[in-house]
Amino acid sequence: MKSNNEKTLIVDATDQAAGNGLMNRRFFLNSALATTATLATGKAAFAQEAVGEGQEDWTLYPGSDALEYGELSRFEAGRVKKLVGGLAGGRTATSAGRTPLHQLMGTITPSGLHFEVTHHGIPDINPDQHQLVMHGMVKQPLKWGIENLENYPTITREYFMECSGNGRLLYYEPLSPKMTLDATHGLVSGSQWTGVKLSTLLDECGLEDGAKWIIAEGADSGSLSRSIPIDKALDDTMIAIYQNGERIRPGQGYPMRLLNPGFEGNTSVKWLRSLYVTDRPVMSRFETSKYTDKMPDGKAMQFSLELDVKSVITRPTNALSLQKHGLYEITGLAWSGRGKIARVEVSADGGKTWADAVLEGPIHSKMMTRFRIPWMWNGDPAVLQSRAIDEAGRVQPSREQLFKGRGRQAYYHYHAIHSWAVETDGTINHVYA
Amino acid sequence: MKSNNEKTLIVDATDQAAGNGLMNRRFFLNSALATTATLATGKAAFAQEAVGEGQEDWTLYPGSDALEYGELSRFEAGRVKKLVGGLAGGRTATSAGRTPLHQLMGTITPSGLHFEVTHHGIPDINPDQHQLVMHGMVKQPLKWGIENLENYPTITREYFMECSGNGRLLYYEPLSPKMTLDATHGLVSGSQWTGVKLSTLLDECGLEDGAKWIIAEGADSGSLSRSIPIDKALDDTMIAIYQNGERIRPGQGYPMRLLNPGFEGNTSVKWLRSLYVTDRPVMSRFETSKYTDKMPDGKAMQFSLELDVKSVITRPTNALSLQKHGLYEITGLAWSGRGKIARVEVSADGGKTWADAVLEGPIHSKMMTRFRIPWMWNGDPAVLQSRAIDEAGRVQPSREQLFKGRGRQAYYHYHAIHSWAVETDGTINHVYA
Repeated sequence: MKSNNEKTLIVDATDQAAGNGLMNRRFFLNSALATTATLATGKAAFAQEAVGEGQEDWTLYPGSDALEYGELSRFEAGRVKKLVGGLAGGRTATSAGRTPLHQLMGTITPSGLHFEVTHHGIPDINPDQHQLVMHGMVKQPLKWGIENLENYPTITREYFMECSGNGRLLYYEPLSPKMTLDATHGLVSGSQWTGVKLSTLLDECGLEDGAKWIIAEGADSGSLSRSIPIDKALDDTMIAIYQNGERIRPGQGYPMRLLNPGFEGNTSVKWLRSLYVTDRPVMSRFETSKYTDKMPDGKAMQFSLELDVKSVITRPTNALSLQKHGLYEITGLAWSGRGKIARVEVSADGGKTWADAVLEGPIHSKMMTRFRIPWMWNGDPAVLQSRAIDEAGRVQPSREQLFKGRGRQAYYHYHAIHSWAVETDGTINHVYA
Repeated sequence: MKSNNEKTLIVDATDQAAGNGLMNRRFFLNSALATTATLATGKAAFAQEAVGEGQEDWTLYPGSDALEYGELSRFEAGRVKKLVGGLAGGRTATSAGRTPLHQLMGTITPSGLHFEVTHHGIPDINPDQHQLVMHGMVKQPLKWGIENLENYPTITREYFMECSGNGRLLYYEPLSPKMTLDATHGLVSGSQWTGVKLSTLLDECGLEDGAKWIIAEGADSGSLSRSIPIDKALDDTMIAIYQNGERIRPGQGYPMRLLNPGFEGNTSVKWLRSLYVTDRPVMSRFETSKYTDKMPDGKAMQFSLELDVKSVITRPTNALSLQKHGLYEITGLAWSGRGKIARVEVSADGGKTWADAVLEGPIHSKMMTRFRIPWMWNGDPAVLQSRAIDEAGRVQPSREQLFKGRGRQAYYHYHAIHSWAVETDGTINHVYA
């Protein structure tokens, strides 16, 4: 371990949790963080910057009236989704909007910033003309408009949603050190969803013997379809109607979407219009030509539905440059398609030593969990990493470990440990480490 | 109990939880709700309505591209805050925007629909020119801009916010039966907040002996000020920077607001610029001429900071008219400034009999909790009520009980049981019952 090279950085060695400045979590829990450093130096632990001290206009004159739907400050205009792809010359094409995780905090993603990937554009559906049909191997086919679906017993749950293509660029080399975090990790978001359990509708229709899969189809012009195993459908799958308290937005599937917690996002079919119960998967375009991975033996891995345990540090990232030596909070998000996050470890020395981060509770199953740990940066180079472990005991692999099992021709389901390199001048870069 | 008068309403008597159609909660937990009624009649429990079956345009042509910040469907344009008051002829005046609770689900309120009450309008603050100062009875006065405040250890929590004036109209008679729910209950909302604990900043500054109160002041043109007891400040008070994942919106206090969980909303000072530590309350305009209640003995009740246990049914309400006899879900919200909601009871017969509703978990302290119970409406008149009990053992009072202690000259802190009358034709009205 390097010795601290400035007087402001003197801390008790027993407060260190791992190499290169990672601090004990009781630094947080006891609020002792600030005090400790203050006592050592007679100065505050966190740098104070002088800011404007004038009588600004807004302190002198009345402000504006409330809005029917409150907006963000004009000074936050840069916190938006990054868009890629889209419609060109009237042709349908895949388009995506990626969540700026490095600009957000907490675990709920504002609905307007929830990532989206669409293959045929966002339909402008009139809910009064939309219906959901359940048919196939059921005793009684039924259909529902949004208004009568709302009469059913509903549930509210927090779940993450992740595109299996999230992190795709990290299969490749060289790595662009200055990509913002949305490019590498922005196809994951978290929401509070309210809707009707699919099992309630299946109960009402009555399954026939031999029913094994449900083909879910959207009302978009490409009729995106995915096959859902019946066990999942009877477990926690829901028909979501509300997201973060209000009706789902068109980019997220208005007026209703299938929601398969912990499964790759593409299976949570948006603009849901048909659930066809059958004894086999449909082998649709989106589960054959897409959303499959080429394995080392040349075969395709299909129906890799459950998302793996994963985490990433969202602050600091390469969107910041550290201005001073001293104390920082390292924070990020962890999630797993197999249940709750049990533990997140953080390293400041590229994986040589690890310390447990504090997890923000309550921890929800199949939802993002925020982790935090104090870090004393002494000005030396550092490589910051996080490693998540879920309640099923799965450990987020290193990049090497991931490639060992999967080879390097895969496209989806990248979930290896991510590394941020901090340079001596305070700049931060993506690195493979 | 009335007998069911239609074949579709035959249910096993053991499934009934209380009078006038309230059903056992295992109806929900076992998903047996639908099946039971289906078996009895050979028909689905919930009415199915035929909706449009044509090939709508959105199924035929590609939709639109993703947006940088996704918007609501144009078909949801009516789900907005109701505005009252506001600036008139250049004068400052109180303005309010009320949350349409009857149009929302879950417990998170979208930030754009979070209620707001402002007394001097919404300031348009440039965060680079805003600072928070801590001074008075502290060993070391300090100030922070938003960027260095973000370097501190943060926490994320879900809390409700309620104006103590929420429900003010319910002190009066006669009652307008068709007011929408925002008029009687729309000054309460729930959010996931992220920020820095005030105790962290107090630790850093160091309290002097005898410090008992903190005067919090906003940067609005009226310098709204409230006095916060030091015990609260050292407990769970935070400086909130993010709401529901993104920076707080201007109507909610951008770039930073004080947040006193469970206290009347006005104490959670928006656009926070000064924390002055002292040995006594400041007796500001907003804790003397306003936000006090006239008691039966003619004296004013001041510093009634903790909000009482409260609940309201949000569906069905007078915004709906029941179209058919049959099964419905009754759902609503419950909250308490003193901790977690322990229990919510629902009555369909005006308080003669009560049944426990299902509470949606995890239950957060000082956050709204959603409750649900199935209800079989047989077409008879009904009065729907909810009654919340918190973990401190406090029980939401009837209107009579509330008046007995407080008299009828009060203005704030109305929290009595609320009643919805269902008429035989399915229309619903506010009533005092």
